[in-house]
Amino acid sequence: MSPMPTVSYSITIRLEFAARSAAVSDITARIENRGATVTALDVSASGPERMRADITVLTAGHDHAIEVVDELRTVDGVELGKVSDRTFLAHLGGKLTVESKLPIRHRDDLSMIYTPGVARVVKAIAENPEDARRLTIKRNTVAVVSDGSAILGLGDLGPLAAMPVMEGKAALFKRFANIDAFPICLDAHSVEDIVAHVKAIAPVFAGINLEDISAPRCFEIEDRLRAELDIPVFHDDQHGTAIVVVAALRNALRVVDKDIATARIVLSGAGAAGTAILRLLRAAGARDVVVTDIDGIIHEQRAQLAGRLPWIAEVTNPRELTGSLADAVAGADVFIGVSAGNILTAEDVATMAERSVVFAMANPTPEIDPAEAVKHAEVVATGRSDFANQINNVLAFPGVFRGLLDAHATRVSDRMLLAAAKALADVVTADELNPTYIVPSVFHEGVTKAVASAVEQVAREEAGTVDTITGAMSAIYADEITLEG
Amino acid sequence: MSPMPTVSYSITIRLEFAARSAAVSDITARIENRGATVTALDVSASGPERMRADITVLTAGHDHAIEVVDELRTVDGVELGKVSDRTFLAHLGGKLTVESKLPIRHRDDLSMIYTPGVARVVKAIAENPEDARRLTIKRNTVAVVSDGSAILGLGDLGPLAAMPVMEGKAALFKRFANIDAFPICLDAHSVEDIVAHVKAIAPVFAGINLEDISAPRCFEIEDRLRAELDIPVFHDDQHGTAIVVVAALRNALRVVDKDIATARIVLSGAGAAGTAILRLLRAAGARDVVVTDIDGIIHEQRAQLAGRLPWIAEVTNPRELTGSLADAVAGADVFIGVSAGNILTAEDVATMAERSVVFAMANPTPEIDPAEAVKHAEVVATGRSDFANQINNVLAFPGVFRGLLDAHATRVSDRMLLAAAKALADVVTADELNPTYIVPSVFHEGVTKAVASAVEQVAREEAGTVDTITGAMSAIYADEITLEG
Repeated sequence: MSPMPTVSYSITIRLEFAARSAAVSDITARIENRGATVTALDVSASGPERMRADITVLTAGHDHAIEVVDELRTVDGVELGKVSDRTFLAHLGGKLTVESKLPIRHRDDLSMIYTPGVARVVKAIAENPEDARRLTIKRNTVAVVSDGSAILGLGDLGPLAAMPVMEGKAALFKRFANIDAFPICLDAHSVEDIVAHVKAIAPVFAGINLEDISAPRCFEIEDRLRAELDIPVFHDDQHGTAIVVVAALRNALRVVDKDIATARIVLSGAGAAGTAILRLLRAAGARDVVVTDIDGIIHEQRAQLAGRLPWIAEVTNPRELTGSLADAVAGADVFIGVSAGNILTAEDVATMAERSVVFAMANPTPEIDPAEAVKHAEVVATGRSDFANQINNVLAFPGVFRGLLDAHATRVSDRMLLAAAKALADVVTADELNPTYIVPSVFHEGVTKAVASAVEQVAREEAGTVDTITGAMSAIYADEITLEG
Repeated sequence: MSPMPTVSYSITIRLEFAARSAAVSDITARIENRGATVTALDVSASGPERMRADITVLTAGHDHAIEVVDELRTVDGVELGKVSDRTFLAHLGGKLTVESKLPIRHRDDLSMIYTPGVARVVKAIAENPEDARRLTIKRNTVAVVSDGSAILGLGDLGPLAAMPVMEGKAALFKRFANIDAFPICLDAHSVEDIVAHVKAIAPVFAGINLEDISAPRCFEIEDRLRAELDIPVFHDDQHGTAIVVVAALRNALRVVDKDIATARIVLSGAGAAGTAILRLLRAAGARDVVVTDIDGIIHEQRAQLAGRLPWIAEVTNPRELTGSLADAVAGADVFIGVSAGNILTAEDVATMAERSVVFAMANPTPEIDPAEAVKHAEVVATGRSDFANQINNVLAFPGVFRGLLDAHATRVSDRMLLAAAKALADVVTADELNPTYIVPSVFHEGVTKAVASAVEQVAREEAGTVDTITGAMSAIYADEITLEG
């Protein structure tokens, strides 16, 4: 795929030029001839001889942007001013603010939200710690925790570099689920330290979203925190991905009219996402899953199985396949890739069963170019936004946490994840369903609510509180003074 | 002092009553006869025979509120509904929200603030960690850290109970200095653990405000963090108090026409606040300070001096006094109390020098009732909002942190604290200065700016960056693409 101009590499160029009739069209033509896209032109000053304008241009990348700017240097009578990068501008000063819900206008306001009034609220919580969920931000607040050890596909870049991602995640929490999320980027390395730090800050939060923590540490960190905390802990790279994959697969199988219990599924990638997808596929009823990694098919006789691989070998591969990814794919109904770019060929896909399904989700380059995959597969999905069927975690995590928070959940269960996947799949109606629409858009209004309701219901069932928790608003009358009148 | 009705104990009572002409006045008279104050009455339903209203009443405390409600039960034809507590209502769901600065309307917005666009910002910070101050919330974000071991005057109630105070503090940071502050309430106990946790979360923040951590641990925690972190660490209970006390003293001495270098100053309380006040008094030029604690005057021959007391004994008490607080106060020009309620009598104050100054700041009960103190002292201040000259940390910490953040300061120095105190004092003009106005109101618009400028200037001087840092806005063009044009 030749890279397309994208807002991710959008620049704004300030320039002055001679005020003549074709000046603007000359400039925009030059930009477009270089393959870039003009999206805005604002004239900010105009005189009899010279004009000044800010032109916003989508480019395909860093080098392309420089090429466009250099092109403009050669236009007669044009003088270039500042070039700004819209993505960087958007990040300037960070992407979040912390706001007070209450106005602080005068001494009375101060007396209520701070001393001396706050002392009564403090005492109420000291007497009944459960009240923290009612009288503090804990109720609606989630920590987005990372050590920066596996940021996007970029590797271990540390906690400072993780900040823009965690801030972005927090912004998504707000936008899609009205959850207050705060980035906690930890300068810590060992499992022991990360667990200790997260436990220490846990009083502030009603949930922990782990993010971009490298495998296999992420497994142990999550397991330990789940065991030791009384709030839900959710590693989005694992479970968020698993929910969306299982939802998409559910709908893809509806399209191709196959049953998950009998479908032959190949899962490429045994890292954090792969392991979580496998777990949820099994919970969803998949029985014939073959997992491959860089060394080929995982089976019980393979040498040196470490970490989670022995478990994978034990619970997968019922037909005891051995060999390469290509061997696994032959005759398979479904390929799910969370591994590496360009490891699957069109020829491999051609060997799959009739009406095959290919999810190629490696980032930024998929396991197979989707344009190639569609030649042989009936349903193709990727993680990319420029292709149909984007498998995007934003479809899952906001609703999952909304449901957990609304249920005052203390844990996350596989049943909740499965309910989330089913609810997400069901957002796509029978009328809407087709090979290029197996998951809804992230901006589809019903997504968060559907996922949240499903998760909340299971959480309440598991906690045995379906009928007893009547919601936060019933607690609005916080009377120390109780009236029988 | 008989307690006055206050907004801290304000309740809203819903009631129905017979629709007759004197109904409302009967009800309000009954409330006022009980010593409470009606501040609002909203009729929410009215019919030919019955009316419904919400009446908001300031009471003097919990028992008084019950008394008022019970009184209303006895009014003929009145039926009581819900009673709600306005302070609790204000705290419902917590006092802070985390908001996204940028709208997320469509896929392009997502691509800029999250993947894939965010990857470039991540890489920029990985290459140049200093960019985190430009491209993340770090620039304007402060952690309000507490372990809940010394909440207000209430003792060790733990991290959950500390939440309302730390949220309130964060709200004040926003209101008075436009700083994004976030509560970090730690489930941790040892100095070692607290230091480790704060260091781990430090990447997110440009400053650490320690709060309500018990002495003597607070000293070691602050010292360790200052030594080990590259962002400023400020324990507000110590230094915020010290700044406001020194500012107030500066103005009080102007009123009584005395010099700090020769004034005899008695400081009651050798805890966190007392120690910090002593340090800043010395930096401000005080030479004759006598410190007392529960065992009386601290002097070098006193038995069993531990912790910071040997240092206090060494640097204070030049006239080698011994004995009780009363012995210390006789002939003194200034009394500063950060100790316990009702330990100073009017007779003690009468023994002080002419034109004496009394700061009685113990919470919630001052060392001496200010109404008693003014009988003999010329200038009296307390920590209370219902008396003139309130010594309130809100006068200091927002401006201090605003200055530190604007200077990109890596540390706090005594020179900065002293500059803050001087700037705060100077907010009160010569025309305004009088015995009942030695510190400005916390709502005085110039306070934060004056304190911030003073702190920023010293911070820049000490960092040697007075002329080189031109402010964040000059960095708005974050061009990877550099133009020479």
